[in-house]
Amino acid sequence: MTKTAIAAIIVLFVCQGCVSTSAAPSAAAPKVVLIIGDGMDDQQITIARHYLVGEAGALALDGMPQRAQVRMQTVDEANPTMPDYVPDSANTATSMATGIVTSAGRIGTTAGTDRDAVTIMELAAGAGYGTGIVTTASVTDATPASFVAHVNWRLCEGPRSMVPRAQRGGLFSGNCSADLKANGGKGSISEQIAASRMDVVLGGGRQHFDQPAEGEATKTVADAAIGQGFAIVHTGDELAALPDEGRVLGLFSPSTMPVKWRGAGDAKAERVQRVDGRPVLPEPFACEPNPEFATMPTLPAMARAALDRLDGKSFMLMIESASIDKQSHLRRPCGQIGELGQLDDTLKLVLDYARAHPETLVLVTADHSQAAQLIPETSVLAALNAASPGAFARVRTPEGALMGVNYSTNDSNVQEDHTGADVPLFASGPGADAIPSSLRQPEVFGLLLRHLGLEAPR
Amino acid sequence: MTKTAIAAIIVLFVCQGCVSTSAAPSAAAPKVVLIIGDGMDDQQITIARHYLVGEAGALALDGMPQRAQVRMQTVDEANPTMPDYVPDSANTATSMATGIVTSAGRIGTTAGTDRDAVTIMELAAGAGYGTGIVTTASVTDATPASFVAHVNWRLCEGPRSMVPRAQRGGLFSGNCSADLKANGGKGSISEQIAASRMDVVLGGGRQHFDQPAEGEATKTVADAAIGQGFAIVHTGDELAALPDEGRVLGLFSPSTMPVKWRGAGDAKAERVQRVDGRPVLPEPFACEPNPEFATMPTLPAMARAALDRLDGKSFMLMIESASIDKQSHLRRPCGQIGELGQLDDTLKLVLDYARAHPETLVLVTADHSQAAQLIPETSVLAALNAASPGAFARVRTPEGALMGVNYSTNDSNVQEDHTGADVPLFASGPGADAIPSSLRQPEVFGLLLRHLGLEAPR
Repeated sequence: MTKTAIAAIIVLFVCQGCVSTSAAPSAAAPKVVLIIGDGMDDQQITIARHYLVGEAGALALDGMPQRAQVRMQTVDEANPTMPDYVPDSANTATSMATGIVTSAGRIGTTAGTDRDAVTIMELAAGAGYGTGIVTTASVTDATPASFVAHVNWRLCEGPRSMVPRAQRGGLFSGNCSADLKANGGKGSISEQIAASRMDVVLGGGRQHFDQPAEGEATKTVADAAIGQGFAIVHTGDELAALPDEGRVLGLFSPSTMPVKWRGAGDAKAERVQRVDGRPVLPEPFACEPNPEFATMPTLPAMARAALDRLDGKSFMLMIESASIDKQSHLRRPCGQIGELGQLDDTLKLVLDYARAHPETLVLVTADHSQAAQLIPETSVLAALNAASPGAFARVRTPEGALMGVNYSTNDSNVQEDHTGADVPLFASGPGADAIPSSLRQPEVFGLLLRHLGLEAPR
Repeated sequence: MTKTAIAAIIVLFVCQGCVSTSAAPSAAAPKVVLIIGDGMDDQQITIARHYLVGEAGALALDGMPQRAQVRMQTVDEANPTMPDYVPDSANTATSMATGIVTSAGRIGTTAGTDRDAVTIMELAAGAGYGTGIVTTASVTDATPASFVAHVNWRLCEGPRSMVPRAQRGGLFSGNCSADLKANGGKGSISEQIAASRMDVVLGGGRQHFDQPAEGEATKTVADAAIGQGFAIVHTGDELAALPDEGRVLGLFSPSTMPVKWRGAGDAKAERVQRVDGRPVLPEPFACEPNPEFATMPTLPAMARAALDRLDGKSFMLMIESASIDKQSHLRRPCGQIGELGQLDDTLKLVLDYARAHPETLVLVTADHSQAAQLIPETSVLAALNAASPGAFARVRTPEGALMGVNYSTNDSNVQEDHTGADVPLFASGPGADAIPSSLRQPEVFGLLLRHLGLEAPR
């Protein structure tokens, strides 16, 4: 924390200078909108740009006045002095939300020692500020959870998941029972959201709320949330019909919200087939609307609702486009592109808000990088019968060219791994020009803290 | 060119303002050092950082005050209105050196129409400025060539390569005979370097100069260069022994210069073997000095020599660390890391120079992105027997952790393809803070032009 604290002091110094020379009213209530594109690295941005606006075009992201690069830091759970070079959304979001470095899978807790780390949302709520989380994932998923909850493993999403390590099947091995209230913990992530001081929580994940809370026979987590003053909505229409005052928990799908786009006919990347040793490349496809998305509120609509509810005072709002990552895991280029498009549309809306409220710091970043690579639609070595050894798609862009999208981090039929490259940070608003061109991911917390005028936790 | 011209005007305006408020003496002769890391995308930078300074460390690159992102543009040779989403070093360097958008493989010439585009080196020399090119590749390789020569295909490197398309075997199909002087062209790249007004040209590629020039029985290209006033040196000692005045052509190896590092015992990435369906991951390795590098001048030493010779007036110096790309093509992580280390050491030296000469604009960028990906050293799905489908290395870093480096753009035994993601641009010096956070690659030319106070070609 020492280095973060030093960085925070530097940022404070520079940002104060910046506010004093900018048009921003220094007396106005400071606001932060932090937009996270999950897995949104430069491969993802380039792939999406080509499809959405063409090779010579520019996204709203590209117009952001400041651009920095974020160096992720992750440590090994068993040996927290040893780095782990490829993180996940839990530890990276925890770094941004709390300023600590932790191990993959952890939500708001320290590696090895399992201590809770105070989040920016908790600090903001403690100062009487508004707080909001908007995501296209389950609101209990790793990225949003890290801003509001403290558990030792990201999959402790609802009461039913709170089982000991030995009872958890599959690939993951977190010991959720340690976080049971009965065992001195704070309960599952959904229960911690229900008990939180958040003003606005919008996304998917209804299943984790529609189950009995710990120690209850029939009273659900949703019931507990209502008891804490949350209005619960399940559709965009219900959200729109709510008065702008009061706390709201929007749960628009059982788990991750359906994505905006898919490949034509539900096409995705496929293994390259070979006939007599020669590669038969997959047929090109364009993107089309995903029918399942039709009934969902869009990410811009959810962001709009959150801004309307938080407007009028200081606030900390985190907005996540979650399925850039999830669709890349599943080798679905059109899914990625559509969700990056949702993020870019949301950014336009947020920038409009910030123009009217120049005390708003807007940050856009990714938590970690992802598998998808933009490669030649036909290998330069095609004469030698070379082709992708992984899953491969040829996407036909609206400008009529073919874009090769490659997924080759592993050969499973399940999903891709993350990658470990630095991720971008875009910024506009007061103090944005004082953000260093390269920063460690926990220093993002310092940026939030300083702009909101909050003190670092001791 | 219209958009580039507009961008250039904007940069000029802002840069003038910047110089008037900075400590830089506005009357001093403007200087540019453009450092190109070939293939140096964010995956490469992160991989190198972990090895060179550790996960929590920072490279000299990370300390650059400004960071932007560059959107590459490439068009199809047969249909120059159609984008080509994955470029090569020829068209990308041509964009930076001349401001045009062209097709892959072209050196200083337009797609389809094969017209010559004026380079920044030609404009600088025309203004009486010093000019220098330093590279670890052959000086006739695509990146350096694009700053000084005009041919329709990057492999037209020496007189012997100037054969018609039909006589060229292998994978590439450029028609070098069209560039013969006898056919109205300017001859091969080495001949164009020999005939150029460059002051300093240092790198590899001796083989392309030690062969008879076009139309000559015995007189070599090297002889022609000497006739044009170049002193030719072949070793670092010979370079050091030269007086600081006069033009110099340093050719330190027959082709690409040997790289600084290699995997221990010459280890590189390998296909993951399987026994009974289970992956047997390759043995981890660390990096070690490459014995072949011992007799080479280092990139910092060549850069130092170039700065010493160009000092005292305005100059345009391009320095390339070429084998970040070439070693990534060959699936050699330690080779990449060592060459990125050479670039970072060179940057430190250049920044020292710029501190003493604050009229120096320092830019560091990449031409395009590359194949290498930082992935988990063991897949998250290892329990499902998942592993890389491509070539894979586990590199043991000095801080003791394992770093997975993946090469999976194609399944050939020859080399990887490029990737198409945006690349970074780092900047310091007068006007650096006015560089937009995102720019098209041809706009890099505008940055050079404006800082040097040169007029755009008509």
